[in-house]
Amino acid sequence: MRNFKMIVEYDGTGYCGWQRQENGLSIQQVLEEIIQLITQEKVTVIGSGRTDAGVHALNQVASFRCNTRLPAETLFRGLNGLLPHDIVLKALEEVAGEFHAQHDVRGKIYVYRICNKSLRPALGRNYFWFIRHPLDLILMEKAAQYLIGTHDFSSFCATGTQVKDRTRTVTSISINSGEDGLLEISIEAQGFLKYMVRNIVGTLVEIGRGQRPPAAMKEIIDSCDRNIAGPTAPARGLYLKEVKY
Amino acid sequence: MRNFKMIVEYDGTGYCGWQRQENGLSIQQVLEEIIQLITQEKVTVIGSGRTDAGVHALNQVASFRCNTRLPAETLFRGLNGLLPHDIVLKALEEVAGEFHAQHDVRGKIYVYRICNKSLRPALGRNYFWFIRHPLDLILMEKAAQYLIGTHDFSSFCATGTQVKDRTRTVTSISINSGEDGLLEISIEAQGFLKYMVRNIVGTLVEIGRGQRPPAAMKEIIDSCDRNIAGPTAPARGLYLKEVKY
Repeated sequence: MRNFKMIVEYDGTGYCGWQRQENGLSIQQVLEEIIQLITQEKVTVIGSGRTDAGVHALNQVASFRCNTRLPAETLFRGLNGLLPHDIVLKALEEVAGEFHAQHDVRGKIYVYRICNKSLRPALGRNYFWFIRHPLDLILMEKAAQYLIGTHDFSSFCATGTQVKDRTRTVTSISINSGEDGLLEISIEAQGFLKYMVRNIVGTLVEIGRGQRPPAAMKEIIDSCDRNIAGPTAPARGLYLKEVKY
Repeated sequence: MRNFKMIVEYDGTGYCGWQRQENGLSIQQVLEEIIQLITQEKVTVIGSGRTDAGVHALNQVASFRCNTRLPAETLFRGLNGLLPHDIVLKALEEVAGEFHAQHDVRGKIYVYRICNKSLRPALGRNYFWFIRHPLDLILMEKAAQYLIGTHDFSSFCATGTQVKDRTRTVTSISINSGEDGLLEISIEAQGFLKYMVRNIVGTLVEIGRGQRPPAAMKEIIDSCDRNIAGPTAPARGLYLKEVKY
Protein backbone atom coordinates (compact mmCIF):
# COMPACT_ATOMS: atom_id res chain seq x y z
CA MET A 1 0.00 0.00 0.00
CA ARG A 2 1.31 3.50 -0.79
CA ASN A 3 1.88 6.05 1.94
CA PHE A 4 1.29 9.79 1.45
CA LYS A 5 2.40 12.77 3.51
CA MET A 6 0.51 16.07 3.33
CA ILE A 7 1.16 19.57 4.64
CA VAL A 8 -2.16 21.22 5.45
CA GLU A 9 -3.09 24.85 6.13
CA TYR A 10 -6.48 25.48 7.68
CA ASP A 11 -8.62 28.16 9.22
CA GLY A 12 -10.00 26.43 12.31
CA THR A 13 -12.82 28.94 12.88
CA GLY A 14 -15.60 26.77 11.45
CA TYR A 15 -14.43 23.38 12.75
CA CYS A 16 -14.69 21.33 15.94
CA GLY A 17 -10.93 20.77 15.71
CA TRP A 18 -8.63 18.36 13.90
CA GLN A 19 -10.01 15.10 15.27
CA ARG A 20 -13.19 13.36 14.07
CA GLN A 21 -16.10 13.88 16.45
CA GLU A 22 -19.71 12.77 16.64
CA ASN A 23 -21.16 16.24 17.01
CA GLY A 24 -19.26 18.54 14.70
CA LEU A 25 -17.28 18.76 11.49
CA SER A 26 -13.53 18.20 11.88
CA ILE A 27 -10.62 18.84 9.54
CA GLN A 28 -9.79 15.12 9.62
CA GLN A 29 -13.30 14.17 8.47
CA VAL A 30 -13.24 16.65 5.59
CA LEU A 31 -9.86 15.35 4.40
CA GLU A 32 -10.90 11.69 4.68
CA GLU A 33 -14.14 12.26 2.77
CA ILE A 34 -12.44 14.16 -0.03
CA ILE A 35 -9.62 11.64 -0.37
CA GLN A 36 -12.26 8.90 -0.59
CA LEU A 37 -14.09 10.88 -3.26
CA ILE A 38 -11.00 10.93 -5.49
CA THR A 39 -9.49 7.52 -4.72
CA GLN A 40 -12.72 5.58 -4.10
CA GLU A 41 -10.98 4.10 -1.05
CA LYS A 42 -11.87 4.53 2.60
CA VAL A 43 -8.77 6.02 4.23
CA THR A 44 -7.72 7.08 7.71
CA VAL A 45 -5.88 10.39 7.85
CA ILE A 46 -3.35 10.53 10.69
CA GLY A 47 -2.40 14.01 11.90
CA SER A 48 0.81 14.95 13.72
CA GLY A 49 -1.51 15.66 16.64
CA ARG A 50 -4.89 17.19 17.38
CA THR A 51 -5.67 20.86 17.28
CA ASP A 52 -8.62 22.17 19.31
CA ALA A 53 -11.80 23.76 17.94
CA GLY A 54 -11.01 27.18 16.47
CA VAL A 55 -7.23 26.62 16.37
CA HIS A 56 -5.54 27.25 13.01
CA ALA A 57 -2.69 25.48 11.25
CA LEU A 58 -0.12 26.95 8.92
CA ASN A 59 1.63 23.62 8.37
CA GLN A 60 -0.14 20.67 9.97
CA VAL A 61 1.35 17.39 8.79
CA ALA A 62 -0.81 14.35 8.08
CA SER A 63 -0.37 10.98 6.40
CA PHE A 64 -2.62 8.32 4.91
CA ARG A 65 -2.19 4.91 3.26
CA CYS A 66 -3.98 4.15 0.04
CA ASN A 67 -3.84 1.79 -2.99
CA THR A 68 -4.61 4.50 -5.54
CA ARG A 69 -2.58 4.47 -8.77
CA LEU A 70 -2.93 8.24 -9.16
CA PRO A 71 0.37 10.15 -9.24
CA ALA A 72 0.98 12.32 -6.15
CA GLU A 73 0.76 15.50 -8.26
CA THR A 74 -2.70 14.52 -9.56
CA LEU A 75 -3.90 13.72 -6.05
CA PHE A 76 -2.51 17.04 -4.79
CA ARG A 77 -4.28 19.17 -7.38
CA GLY A 78 -7.47 17.15 -7.34
CA LEU A 79 -7.78 17.31 -3.56
CA ASN A 80 -7.10 21.05 -3.53
CA GLY A 81 -9.79 21.52 -6.15
CA LEU A 82 -12.33 19.73 -3.95
CA LEU A 83 -11.39 21.03 -0.51
CA PRO A 84 -13.43 23.89 1.00
CA HIS A 85 -12.00 27.43 1.05
CA ASP A 86 -10.75 27.13 4.62
CA ILE A 87 -8.56 24.05 4.10
CA VAL A 88 -5.71 23.79 1.60
CA LEU A 89 -2.91 21.29 0.95
CA LYS A 90 0.43 23.06 0.69
CA ALA A 91 2.19 19.85 -0.35
CA LEU A 92 1.51 16.15 -0.92
CA GLU A 93 4.20 13.55 -1.59
CA GLU A 94 4.59 9.81 -1.51
CA VAL A 95 6.81 8.70 1.38
CA ALA A 96 8.35 5.49 2.68
CA GLY A 97 5.84 2.98 4.07
CA GLU A 98 7.09 3.34 7.63
CA PHE A 99 6.44 7.09 7.90
CA HIS A 100 3.76 7.85 10.50
CA ALA A 101 2.68 11.50 10.90
CA GLN A 102 2.00 11.12 14.63
CA HIS A 103 4.58 8.62 15.97
CA ASP A 104 7.55 10.11 14.13
CA VAL A 105 7.14 13.69 15.39
CA ARG A 106 10.36 15.06 16.93
CA GLY A 107 9.15 18.56 17.71
CA LYS A 108 6.53 21.20 17.01
CA ILE A 109 6.35 24.97 16.83
CA TYR A 110 3.17 26.78 17.79
CA VAL A 111 2.68 30.52 17.47
CA TYR A 112 0.11 32.54 19.39
CA ARG A 113 -1.03 35.94 18.09
CA ILE A 114 -2.21 38.71 20.37
CA CYS A 115 -3.52 42.09 19.28
CA ASN A 116 -2.55 44.50 22.05
CA LYS A 117 -3.99 47.98 21.61
CA SER A 118 -6.52 50.20 23.29
CA LEU A 119 -9.37 49.63 20.83
CA ARG A 120 -10.62 46.24 19.63
CA PRO A 121 -10.29 45.77 15.86
CA ALA A 122 -13.38 44.79 13.86
CA LEU A 123 -11.29 43.15 11.14
CA GLY A 124 -9.55 39.80 11.48
CA ARG A 125 -10.96 39.03 14.92
CA ASN A 126 -10.88 35.22 14.35
CA TYR A 127 -7.10 35.35 14.01
CA PHE A 128 -5.85 36.75 17.34
CA TRP A 129 -6.66 37.37 21.00
CA PHE A 130 -7.46 41.04 21.55
CA ILE A 131 -6.10 42.42 24.83
CA ARG A 132 -6.82 46.02 25.73
CA HIS A 133 -4.53 46.33 28.76
CA PRO A 134 -0.91 47.19 27.93
CA LEU A 135 1.40 44.18 28.10
CA ASP A 136 4.99 44.53 29.29
CA LEU A 137 7.07 42.38 26.94
CA ILE A 138 10.15 42.52 29.14
CA LEU A 139 8.22 40.92 32.01
CA MET A 140 6.76 38.30 29.69
CA GLU A 141 10.18 37.44 28.26
CA LYS A 142 11.67 37.06 31.74
CA ALA A 143 8.83 34.74 32.77
CA ALA A 144 9.14 32.73 29.54
CA GLN A 145 12.74 31.77 30.34
CA TYR A 146 11.54 29.61 33.25
CA LEU A 147 9.61 27.42 30.81
CA ILE A 148 12.62 26.42 28.75
CA GLY A 149 13.97 22.96 29.47
CA THR A 150 12.47 19.70 30.67
CA HIS A 151 9.74 20.11 33.29
CA ASP A 152 6.58 18.49 34.56
CA PHE A 153 4.06 20.79 32.85
CA SER A 154 1.02 19.60 34.84
CA SER A 155 0.23 23.23 35.74
CA PHE A 156 -0.45 23.93 32.07
CA CYS A 157 -2.27 20.73 31.20
CA ALA A 158 -6.05 20.72 30.66
CA THR A 159 -7.85 19.33 33.69
CA GLY A 160 -9.34 15.90 33.20
CA THR A 161 -6.59 14.76 30.83
CA GLN A 162 -5.75 11.06 31.19
CA VAL A 163 -2.07 11.48 30.21
CA LYS A 164 0.10 10.35 33.14
CA ASP A 165 3.57 11.51 32.11
CA ARG A 166 3.35 15.26 31.86
CA THR A 167 7.04 15.88 31.45
CA ARG A 168 7.80 17.80 28.27
CA THR A 169 10.83 19.62 26.89
CA VAL A 170 10.42 23.21 25.72
CA THR A 171 13.36 24.10 23.48
CA SER A 172 12.62 27.77 22.81
CA ILE A 173 10.17 30.59 23.37
CA SER A 174 10.29 33.98 21.69
CA ILE A 175 7.99 36.98 21.84
CA ASN A 176 8.01 39.38 18.89
CA SER A 177 6.09 42.58 18.46
CA GLY A 178 4.93 43.69 15.01
CA GLU A 179 2.97 46.60 13.64
CA ASP A 180 -0.41 47.76 14.91
CA GLY A 181 -0.07 46.12 18.33
CA LEU A 182 0.50 42.59 17.06
CA LEU A 183 2.44 40.27 19.41
CA GLU A 184 3.55 36.82 18.36
CA ILE A 185 4.58 34.25 20.96
CA SER A 186 6.43 31.32 19.41
CA ILE A 187 6.92 28.11 21.44
CA GLU A 188 8.90 25.09 20.31
CA ALA A 189 8.80 21.80 22.22
CA GLN A 190 9.38 18.12 21.59
CA GLY A 191 5.75 17.58 22.52
CA PHE A 192 2.80 19.44 24.00
CA LEU A 193 0.06 18.57 26.47
CA LYS A 194 -3.59 19.41 25.84
CA TYR A 195 -4.14 23.22 26.10
CA MET A 196 -0.45 23.62 27.08
CA VAL A 197 0.29 26.55 24.75
CA ARG A 198 -2.99 28.31 25.54
CA ASN A 199 -2.46 27.90 29.30
CA ILE A 200 1.11 29.16 29.05
CA VAL A 201 -0.05 32.17 27.03
CA GLY A 202 -2.84 32.94 29.51
CA THR A 203 -0.25 32.92 32.30
CA LEU A 204 2.25 35.03 30.36
CA VAL A 205 -0.49 37.60 29.75
CA GLU A 206 -1.22 37.87 33.49
CA ILE A 207 2.48 38.52 34.02
CA GLY A 208 2.61 41.01 31.13
CA ARG A 209 -0.26 42.92 32.73
CA GLY A 210 1.71 43.12 35.96
CA GLN A 211 -0.72 40.96 37.91
CA ARG A 212 2.10 38.59 38.93
CA PRO A 213 5.90 38.96 38.85
CA PRO A 214 7.92 36.99 36.26
CA ALA A 215 9.32 34.74 39.01
CA ALA A 216 5.79 33.47 39.65
CA MET A 217 6.28 31.34 36.55
CA LYS A 218 8.80 29.18 38.38
CA GLU A 219 6.43 28.67 41.33
CA ILE A 220 3.61 27.82 38.94
CA ILE A 221 5.70 25.16 37.18
CA ASP A 222 6.91 23.71 40.49
CA SER A 223 3.38 23.52 41.94
CA CYS A 224 2.25 21.04 39.26
CA ASP A 225 -1.22 22.46 39.92
CA ARG A 226 -3.41 23.71 37.08
CA ASN A 227 -5.30 25.97 39.52
CA ILE A 228 -2.20 28.06 40.19
CA ALA A 229 -1.55 28.95 36.54
CA GLY A 230 -3.41 31.60 34.53
CA PRO A 231 -6.53 31.19 32.37
CA THR A 232 -6.67 29.38 29.01
CA ALA A 233 -6.07 31.80 26.14
CA PRO A 234 -8.75 31.64 23.41
CA ALA A 235 -8.28 29.16 20.55
CA ARG A 236 -8.53 31.76 17.77
CA GLY A 237 -5.01 33.14 18.42
CA LEU A 238 -3.26 29.78 18.15
CA TYR A 239 -1.52 28.41 15.03
CA LEU A 240 0.32 25.13 14.55
CA LYS A 241 3.26 26.49 12.59
CA GLU A 242 5.67 23.62 12.04
CA VAL A 243 6.04 19.92 12.74
CA LYS A 244 9.55 18.48 12.83
CA TYR A 245 10.44 14.86 11.96
CA MET B 1 -30.07 69.29 18.22
CA ARG B 2 -26.52 67.99 18.72
CA ASN B 3 -24.52 66.59 15.83
CA PHE B 4 -22.07 63.71 16.20
CA LYS B 5 -19.34 62.46 13.90
CA MET B 6 -18.08 58.87 14.12
CA ILE B 7 -15.20 56.98 12.57
CA VAL B 8 -16.22 53.36 12.04
CA GLU B 9 -14.20 50.23 11.29
CA TYR B 10 -16.11 47.20 10.09
CA ASP B 11 -15.68 43.75 8.65
CA GLY B 12 -18.21 43.73 5.81
CA THR B 13 -18.23 39.93 5.42
CA GLY B 14 -21.51 39.37 7.24
CA TYR B 15 -23.43 42.40 5.99
CA CYS B 16 -25.46 43.42 2.95
CA GLY B 17 -23.39 46.62 2.81
CA TRP B 18 -23.50 50.00 4.47
CA GLN B 19 -26.98 51.08 3.41
CA ARG B 20 -30.24 49.91 5.03
CA GLN B 21 -32.02 47.28 2.96
CA GLU B 22 -35.24 45.30 3.21
CA ASN B 23 -33.65 41.90 2.82
CA GLY B 24 -30.43 41.92 4.80
CA LEU B 25 -28.63 43.40 7.76
CA SER B 26 -26.63 46.55 7.01
CA ILE B 27 -23.98 48.41 9.00
CA GLN B 28 -26.23 51.49 8.99
CA GLN B 29 -29.13 49.57 10.55
CA VAL B 30 -26.92 48.09 13.30
CA LEU B 31 -25.56 51.54 14.18
CA GLU B 32 -29.00 53.17 14.19
CA GLU B 33 -30.49 50.46 16.40
CA ILE B 34 -27.67 50.60 18.91
CA ILE B 35 -27.67 54.41 19.06
CA GLN B 36 -31.41 54.26 19.69
CA LEU B 37 -30.85 51.71 22.45
CA ILE B 38 -28.55 54.10 24.32
CA THR B 39 -30.18 57.45 23.56
CA GLN B 40 -33.82 56.28 23.38
CA GLU B 41 -34.10 58.41 20.24
CA LYS B 42 -34.76 57.30 16.70
CA VAL B 43 -31.80 58.55 14.68
CA THR B 44 -30.66 58.45 11.06
CA VAL B 45 -27.02 57.64 10.57
CA ILE B 46 -25.53 59.30 7.48
CA GLY B 47 -22.45 57.65 6.01
CA SER B 48 -19.85 59.33 3.81
CA GLY B 49 -21.17 57.00 1.14
CA ARG B 50 -22.30 53.42 0.68
CA THR B 51 -20.06 50.41 0.68
CA ASP B 52 -21.22 47.23 -1.09
CA ALA B 53 -21.96 43.87 0.54
CA GLY B 54 -18.73 42.26 1.75
CA VAL B 55 -16.68 45.48 1.48
CA HIS B 56 -14.74 46.47 4.60
CA ALA B 57 -14.01 49.86 6.14
CA LEU B 58 -10.97 50.92 8.11
CA ASN B 59 -12.25 54.46 8.62
CA GLN B 60 -15.79 55.01 7.36
CA VAL B 61 -17.14 58.37 8.54
CA ALA B 62 -20.74 58.78 9.62
CA SER B 63 -22.79 61.42 11.41
CA PHE B 64 -26.10 61.58 13.25
CA ARG B 65 -28.20 64.24 14.99
CA CYS B 66 -29.60 63.57 18.42
CA ASN B 67 -30.94 65.36 21.52
CA THR B 68 -29.16 63.11 24.01
CA ARG B 69 -27.51 64.81 27.01
CA LEU B 70 -24.88 62.08 27.25
CA PRO B 71 -21.28 63.29 26.89
CA ALA B 72 -19.58 62.16 23.65
CA GLU B 73 -17.12 59.99 25.63
CA THR B 74 -19.98 58.11 27.33
CA LEU B 75 -21.74 57.58 24.00
CA PHE B 76 -18.49 56.36 22.45
CA ARG B 77 -17.79 53.75 25.11
CA GLY B 78 -21.40 52.69 25.50
CA LEU B 79 -21.88 52.19 21.77
CA ASN B 80 -18.64 50.20 21.50
CA GLY B 81 -19.78 48.02 24.35
CA LEU B 82 -23.02 47.20 22.53
CA LEU B 83 -21.79 46.87 18.96
CA PRO B 84 -21.16 43.38 17.53
CA HIS B 85 -17.58 42.10 17.18
CA ASP B 86 -17.36 43.05 13.51
CA ILE B 87 -18.16 46.76 13.94
CA VAL B 88 -16.23 49.19 16.12
CA LEU B 89 -16.19 52.96 16.60
CA LYS B 90 -12.64 54.30 16.40
CA ALA B 91 -13.78 57.80 17.41
CA LEU B 92 -16.91 59.76 18.22
CA GLU B 93 -17.02 63.54 18.71
CA GLU B 94 -19.58 66.32 18.78
CA VAL B 95 -19.27 68.55 15.73
CA ALA B 96 -20.78 71.78 14.41
CA GLY B 97 -24.45 71.49 13.43
CA GLU B 98 -23.76 72.02 9.74
CA PHE B 99 -21.41 69.03 9.37
CA HIS B 100 -22.87 66.39 7.03
CA ALA B 101 -20.89 63.17 6.58
CA GLN B 102 -22.02 62.72 2.98
CA HIS B 103 -22.33 66.22 1.49
CA ASP B 104 -19.09 67.56 2.92
CA VAL B 105 -16.81 64.82 1.52
CA ARG B 106 -13.85 66.24 -0.42
CA GLY B 107 -12.11 62.99 -1.20
CA LYS B 108 -11.76 59.30 -0.35
CA ILE B 109 -9.05 56.69 -0.35
CA TYR B 110 -9.88 53.06 -1.05
CA VAL B 111 -7.37 50.23 -0.85
CA TYR B 112 -7.74 46.90 -2.59
CA ARG B 113 -5.81 43.85 -1.33
CA ILE B 114 -4.76 41.02 -3.62
CA CYS B 115 -2.97 37.84 -2.56
CA ASN B 116 -0.83 36.85 -5.53
CA LYS B 117 0.86 33.49 -5.11
CA SER B 118 0.68 30.03 -6.60
CA LEU B 119 -1.37 28.41 -3.82
CA ARG B 120 -4.58 29.76 -2.33
CA PRO B 121 -4.33 30.50 1.41
CA ALA B 122 -6.88 28.95 3.75
CA LEU B 123 -6.44 31.72 6.31
CA GLY B 124 -7.83 35.24 5.93
CA ARG B 125 -9.70 34.53 2.73
CA ASN B 126 -12.43 37.13 3.45
CA TYR B 127 -9.82 39.89 3.38
CA PHE B 128 -8.30 39.74 -0.11
CA TRP B 129 -8.74 38.55 -3.70
CA PHE B 130 -6.58 35.50 -4.33
CA ILE B 131 -5.01 35.44 -7.81
CA ARG B 132 -2.90 32.45 -8.79
CA HIS B 133 -1.49 33.83 -12.07
CA PRO B 134 1.62 36.00 -11.66
CA LEU B 135 0.87 39.72 -11.92
CA ASP B 136 3.36 42.12 -13.51
CA LEU B 137 3.38 45.21 -11.29
CA ILE B 138 5.26 47.32 -13.82
CA LEU B 139 2.50 46.80 -16.39
CA MET B 140 -0.18 47.56 -13.81
CA GLU B 141 1.57 50.74 -12.70
CA LYS B 142 1.89 51.93 -16.30
CA ALA B 143 -1.82 51.31 -16.89
CA ALA B 144 -2.78 53.01 -13.64
CA GLN B 145 -1.21 56.31 -14.78
CA TYR B 146 -3.93 56.72 -17.45
CA LEU B 147 -6.57 56.82 -14.72
CA ILE B 148 -5.12 59.83 -12.93
CA GLY B 149 -6.91 63.11 -13.63
CA THR B 150 -10.46 64.09 -14.49
CA HIS B 151 -12.21 61.64 -16.82
CA ASP B 152 -15.62 60.29 -17.68
CA PHE B 153 -15.38 56.96 -15.81
CA SER B 154 -18.48 55.37 -17.43
CA SER B 155 -16.38 52.34 -18.41
CA PHE B 156 -15.90 51.56 -14.73
CA CYS B 157 -19.41 52.34 -13.50
CA ALA B 158 -21.82 49.55 -12.56
CA THR B 159 -24.37 48.98 -15.33
CA GLY B 160 -27.87 50.16 -14.51
CA THR B 161 -26.67 53.08 -12.40
CA GLN B 162 -28.91 56.13 -12.65
CA VAL B 163 -26.08 58.67 -12.10
CA LYS B 164 -25.82 60.89 -15.20
CA ASP B 165 -22.57 62.75 -14.59
CA ARG B 166 -19.88 60.12 -14.50
CA THR B 167 -16.95 62.51 -14.51
CA ARG B 168 -14.68 61.96 -11.53
CA THR B 169 -11.19 63.09 -10.55
CA VAL B 170 -8.65 60.47 -9.52
CA THR B 171 -5.81 62.19 -7.67
CA SER B 172 -3.47 59.23 -7.09
CA ILE B 173 -3.03 55.50 -7.52
CA SER B 174 -0.25 53.43 -6.02
CA ILE B 175 0.48 49.72 -6.06
CA ASN B 176 2.60 48.29 -3.26
CA SER B 177 3.79 44.75 -2.76
CA GLY B 178 4.21 43.33 0.72
CA GLU B 179 5.25 39.98 2.14
CA ASP B 180 3.77 36.63 1.19
CA GLY B 181 2.40 37.81 -2.18
CA LEU B 182 0.26 40.63 -0.80
CA LEU B 183 -0.46 43.50 -3.22
CA GLU B 184 -2.19 46.66 -2.13
CA ILE B 185 -3.70 49.02 -4.69
CA SER B 186 -4.53 52.41 -3.23
CA ILE B 187 -6.82 54.81 -5.12
CA GLU B 188 -7.65 58.35 -4.08
CA ALA B 189 -10.39 60.35 -5.81
CA GLN B 190 -12.69 63.25 -5.07
CA GLY B 191 -15.57 60.84 -5.57
CA PHE B 192 -16.27 57.35 -6.82
CA LEU B 193 -18.99 55.75 -8.95
CA LYS B 194 -20.67 52.49 -7.98
CA TYR B 195 -18.22 49.54 -8.36
CA MET B 196 -15.61 51.98 -9.74
CA VAL B 197 -12.67 50.72 -7.65
CA ARG B 198 -13.59 47.06 -8.16
CA ASN B 199 -13.96 47.54 -11.93
CA ILE B 200 -10.64 49.40 -12.13
CA VAL B 201 -8.93 46.64 -10.13
CA GLY B 202 -10.47 43.93 -12.35
CA THR B 203 -9.08 45.74 -15.39
CA LEU B 204 -5.64 46.30 -13.82
CA VAL B 205 -5.47 42.57 -13.05
CA GLU B 206 -6.14 41.68 -16.72
CA ILE B 207 -3.28 44.00 -17.68
CA GLY B 208 -1.03 42.59 -14.93
CA ARG B 209 -1.66 39.10 -16.29
CA GLY B 210 -0.56 40.28 -19.73
CA GLN B 211 -3.97 39.80 -21.32
CA ARG B 212 -3.99 43.41 -22.51
CA PRO B 213 -1.24 46.04 -22.85
CA PRO B 214 -1.12 48.97 -20.39
CA ALA B 215 -2.16 51.38 -23.18
CA ALA B 216 -5.49 49.54 -23.37
CA MET B 217 -6.43 51.47 -20.23
CA LYS B 218 -6.60 54.70 -22.22
CA GLU B 219 -8.84 53.12 -24.86
CA ILE B 220 -11.08 51.67 -22.16
CA ILE B 221 -11.50 55.08 -20.51
CA ASP B 222 -12.15 56.79 -23.85
CA SER B 223 -14.74 54.21 -24.89
CA CYS B 224 -17.06 55.13 -22.01
CA ASP B 225 -18.36 51.58 -22.37
CA ARG B 226 -18.54 49.23 -19.37
CA ASN B 227 -18.34 46.22 -21.69
CA ILE B 228 -14.83 47.12 -22.80
CA ALA B 229 -13.35 47.19 -19.28
CA GLY B 230 -12.38 44.14 -17.20
CA PRO B 231 -14.50 42.19 -14.70
CA THR B 232 -15.57 43.44 -11.28
CA ALA B 233 -13.06 42.43 -8.59
CA PRO B 234 -14.65 40.67 -5.59
CA ALA B 235 -15.90 42.79 -2.69
CA ARG B 236 -13.82 41.03 -0.02
CA GLY B 237 -10.55 42.70 -1.11
CA LEU B 238 -11.89 46.26 -0.86
CA TYR B 239 -11.45 48.61 2.12
CA LEU B 240 -12.64 52.20 2.56
CA LYS B 241 -9.48 53.57 4.12
CA GLU B 242 -10.00 57.29 4.56
CA VAL B 243 -12.59 60.00 4.01
CA LYS B 244 -11.38 63.56 3.60
CA TYR B 245 -13.40 66.65 4.53
